[in-house]
Amino acid sequence: MEKIKKELLITIGEKRLGHSIRVMTEAKKLSKYYDVDEEKVAMAGLLHDCARYEDKAQLLKESEEFGIISDKLYTGNVNLLHAPLGAEVAKKKFNISDIDILNAIRYHTTGRENMSMLEKIVYIADYIEPKRDFEGIEYVRNICYEEKDLDKALISSIDNTIKFIIEKNLIIHVDTIKARNFLLYYK
Amino acid sequence: MEKIKKELLITIGEKRLGHSIRVMTEAKKLSKYYDVDEEKVAMAGLLHDCARYEDKAQLLKESEEFGIISDKLYTGNVNLLHAPLGAEVAKKKFNISDIDILNAIRYHTTGRENMSMLEKIVYIADYIEPKRDFEGIEYVRNICYEEKDLDKALISSIDNTIKFIIEKNLIIHVDTIKARNFLLYYK
Repeated sequence: MEKIKKELLITIGEKRLGHSIRVMTEAKKLSKYYDVDEEKVAMAGLLHDCARYEDKAQLLKESEEFGIISDKLYTGNVNLLHAPLGAEVAKKKFNISDIDILNAIRYHTTGRENMSMLEKIVYIADYIEPKRDFEGIEYVRNICYEEKDLDKALISSIDNTIKFIIEKNLIIHVDTIKARNFLLYYK
Repeated sequence: MEKIKKELLITIGEKRLGHSIRVMTEAKKLSKYYDVDEEKVAMAGLLHDCARYEDKAQLLKESEEFGIISDKLYTGNVNLLHAPLGAEVAKKKFNISDIDILNAIRYHTTGRENMSMLEKIVYIADYIEPKRDFEGIEYVRNICYEEKDLDKALISSIDNTIKFIIEKNLIIHVDTIKARNFLLYYK
């Protein structure tokens, strides 16, 4: 863990590392409430932003090297790239082989249909970590820890995210819509 | 046209027929501003809701007969069904063979990638016909007739629609997201 933190400090910087540690801590806290492996969730939380480079050129270059689709979908919302790239970086650079951890990193921004518990925890920990402060956040925290309804918390955070993306005129990833539809009606 | 109106009065009722005639009129008005066939757009406008039956059981029954997917995607937002069903009804009952008219009916609720001008006109006419009255509608009318930027009007109406669907806790059709992403970044 310490070795990983040192490496992340170099690649994503102090601010992002601070966020990653908070997500890890939040994810571990959530693991006491939901049926998920604490060690896995901690690792996925720490590494979820391992490819969130400040340097967008590096992000695009590595995405290309790893063969991640770099079409207009992504240039329309370049922020989306760091998640699938993160899964590749976690595998190649940090030697993570657990597919559930890799998927938690891969889908932590968009979500998807049929998310595993680990994927859900990382998604929501990223959303509610202590320094996050925006309208509706306390409501989502309350659903997680008081109502203990993780799916309801996910729907609420996805709804907020979609509205935010619309305001920013950015593209909405289809996986986000599929995640929401699935949670609302397919379970 | 008169024969179709009489038939629609029986199948979808007076209120919906009134709306359909307003959409037809709005679509014809739009056709003076954009490069689209006036007769086709009038026919598509008049018929766009030809399967919007009050009776949801009939909607589901006919959808099943015509082999339209009736999975949870649609039971989650049954309103979505009348558009693809409408295309089938227009073909079989009203003898429409023009694929562009049929697609304008089929996609008038969700939109899709690569919409034709006819599809766009019917979508937006349905959104701005004179009796529509909600926040932001004058802005969209203005974009259509003053700015003459149909794609911008579509994006704005899709954004409003997504926010409305979220408030109602209904599912969002993936085609709507694809339509929006396409208009924003793929053109």
